[in-house]
Amino acid sequence: MLRNSRSVCALPRQINFFANRQQHTNKAAVADTMEKFDLPKRLQGSTPSVWNEYIALAMQYKPLNLGQGFPDDAAPEYVTKALVDIGNDENPLLHQYTRGNGHLRLVQALGKLYSGLVGRELNPLHDILVTSGAYEALYSTIMGHVDVGEEVIIIEPFFDCYEPMVKMAGGVPRFIPLQVRKKDGPISSADWVLDDSELEKMFNKKTKMIILNTPHNPTGKVFHRHELERIAELCRKWNVLCVSDEVYEWLVFDGVEHVRICTLPGMWDRTITIGSAGKTFSVTGWKIGWAYGPHHLIRNLQMVHQNSVYTCPTPLQEGVARSFELELTRMGKPESYFLSLPRELQPKRDFMAKFLTEAGMSPTIPEGGYFMIADWTALGKKLDLSTEADKYRDYKFTKWMTKNMGLQGIPPSAFYSEPNKHLGEDFVRYCFIKKQENLDKAAELLKKLN
Amino acid sequence: MLRNSRSVCALPRQINFFANRQQHTNKAAVADTMEKFDLPKRLQGSTPSVWNEYIALAMQYKPLNLGQGFPDDAAPEYVTKALVDIGNDENPLLHQYTRGNGHLRLVQALGKLYSGLVGRELNPLHDILVTSGAYEALYSTIMGHVDVGEEVIIIEPFFDCYEPMVKMAGGVPRFIPLQVRKKDGPISSADWVLDDSELEKMFNKKTKMIILNTPHNPTGKVFHRHELERIAELCRKWNVLCVSDEVYEWLVFDGVEHVRICTLPGMWDRTITIGSAGKTFSVTGWKIGWAYGPHHLIRNLQMVHQNSVYTCPTPLQEGVARSFELELTRMGKPESYFLSLPRELQPKRDFMAKFLTEAGMSPTIPEGGYFMIADWTALGKKLDLSTEADKYRDYKFTKWMTKNMGLQGIPPSAFYSEPNKHLGEDFVRYCFIKKQENLDKAAELLKKLN
Repeated sequence: MLRNSRSVCALPRQINFFANRQQHTNKAAVADTMEKFDLPKRLQGSTPSVWNEYIALAMQYKPLNLGQGFPDDAAPEYVTKALVDIGNDENPLLHQYTRGNGHLRLVQALGKLYSGLVGRELNPLHDILVTSGAYEALYSTIMGHVDVGEEVIIIEPFFDCYEPMVKMAGGVPRFIPLQVRKKDGPISSADWVLDDSELEKMFNKKTKMIILNTPHNPTGKVFHRHELERIAELCRKWNVLCVSDEVYEWLVFDGVEHVRICTLPGMWDRTITIGSAGKTFSVTGWKIGWAYGPHHLIRNLQMVHQNSVYTCPTPLQEGVARSFELELTRMGKPESYFLSLPRELQPKRDFMAKFLTEAGMSPTIPEGGYFMIADWTALGKKLDLSTEADKYRDYKFTKWMTKNMGLQGIPPSAFYSEPNKHLGEDFVRYCFIKKQENLDKAAELLKKLN
Repeated sequence: MLRNSRSVCALPRQINFFANRQQHTNKAAVADTMEKFDLPKRLQGSTPSVWNEYIALAMQYKPLNLGQGFPDDAAPEYVTKALVDIGNDENPLLHQYTRGNGHLRLVQALGKLYSGLVGRELNPLHDILVTSGAYEALYSTIMGHVDVGEEVIIIEPFFDCYEPMVKMAGGVPRFIPLQVRKKDGPISSADWVLDDSELEKMFNKKTKMIILNTPHNPTGKVFHRHELERIAELCRKWNVLCVSDEVYEWLVFDGVEHVRICTLPGMWDRTITIGSAGKTFSVTGWKIGWAYGPHHLIRNLQMVHQNSVYTCPTPLQEGVARSFELELTRMGKPESYFLSLPRELQPKRDFMAKFLTEAGMSPTIPEGGYFMIADWTALGKKLDLSTEADKYRDYKFTKWMTKNMGLQGIPPSAFYSEPNKHLGEDFVRYCFIKKQENLDKAAELLKKLN
């Protein structure tokens, strides 16, 4: 085999000695094979995500991409420098398997950080799980807790993976949309609220879990203390697990406070909180996330993690640990990245709100996160979207804009359940954690609409 | 919250303003919570893996660790250097999300490599999925294909994650042990064989999948062409999917050929092959793996991957891609790492076989991989293992050795199903991809046994 590798690798189109035998695969046999090898029931109904479609669209049309949520500017120098140091380190074990539930140095740093933030001492070995991004933390949480037939309350719009994860676990998603309580004038993310009696009706004996996301993607809503207290009250009343996706925990604006629901009375024992190094340090491509909470909840996640991924990359965990250690010495000081990043982002948010408004859209000013949703319907009257065949108007609008204006956003109906997708159709989601020059370009492009 | 972060982080033991409220959590409430939040049915019966226990043991006793399978020597310099270059690169996008099913540069390199090796052109975008290690590739394969009640044939001993993964999918594992066909004299991994009529009886209408592992962990068996042809024949006859875990594909000794079962007649359309950058480039801590095969099979894995992890780390995928690109220019040449690594390992294998024999054990000489199993029972007569409370003798032996001789191996009964664990009890598994000085130390330690 090896003797032949060199030439066939140089010429992959060339048919080698195996190929002749394989070109004759019986087509009927393939059809049989394919039927038997359909998706198992737990995955039926799962569809390729909006990201697949919009990443492919971006590859084809090469627009200015304000779609996917990642910074296009450099991460803090000490973060990428950590990777250089690790690559140069003489310790070969930095490139080998580390502890399955989290690299020791990283769980110790996370333990120190969150023990302070939540006001109780976390056991780094029992109360924290490091995962392949916050995404796997969500997956391990849902698969580790939701049993067949149990209900999970999901607040709409929602980060699009929550729904297929719940369905894969055999759970029943129950959706409750945020409602805009204000129809005129500038809208803040704080104007997107849950109706209290609707929320109360979502809870029943079958309810296993509620998934909270604060700061919220895509609206930027930061759930205020009184809102969290109401959710906490219902969780306690119905003995419901609260999953709090707080990946944008450091990105809050206008002096708004990010409250961790696990710190509310009686909530520690029923809350799993999820965080992300990608969002915290502007390195989404590192795919290091975590979940923390009481061991009796985290141990279920550890079992899913053990069965699915087992351990996360050592060099990246080491790099995140070193970065946290540095930031722990700067907590609360002006040079803290956790303070400087939102300080730098707030003017970008305001700039985007201004240029979207000037272009004729109505943005919701986010109190947190790095996305802005905007109502584009006033603009729509001027545009002929009939060239786009999609079912939902926001898909038509965002595709038309990508192809004709060279600017890409994400259609928020992707963040709604099927019956409620119409609630997202008037909107587009843009990401503002982008270089100023790219935001300037976006503003220029949108001027052409008028 | 932020104002308080600094001091509470500096003093995590200090109780801050939240703590008072939370120390009073009602114990009865916690008990209720805990009962409701037990593992869902799909995970019941999953137990912490042997790795958790033996890693903890190693942390406590600090033995010379020949247990877990990773090299303790430096990876090739160009691999770790790639990480340095990526950390220094001015392109910030190397640290942001990349394509979900695999970083473009990596799937292109993998496509080129395997197109040559399997003799048919792979479509890098459709036929390959990059995963969080080969471990996640196995998980996505099993969760993406096995439905409730379907049978999966697992050859014993087996890499221990196969069984809980199949159970998590609701599948029914059906085990068939390799049998040692020779009782005297030096034993080769080729002497561990499947009984043909037993194998035939494993297949029936409910059989969805067989999991093959070649080179095999822990025996080092490299399945020879005639053995694979028999498995292939049964797969074709019963329309069964073959999952071929080939993470040790480059580690074959004595000129033995590694045959990819997907290259046998009629097998491409029913085989998913799994590989590992960690094993290929001696960087197990990078956790980059892949699965390749026909799109109609791979797309199911992509759905699980999309729902669980979504995308793998960009800098590590980029580093693996660059490493493959270099190796593709060296394929088949003496300087190829894929040839030089087994060339360097073979004397280590022989050295280990020698010192284990001298110590009174009977090793199986592996034709592939980097593990050696050895029958330690002749030694056991001299040892008093009664201090160890474990159920299985190989657990007793390996723990006793760790605590008393300072040498750690892995108990192979962990690689057998419950009813067949006795088949592993006479053995211990050691890893020989270790620095010569550490193998020398192991030899010295074992001399004390006589």
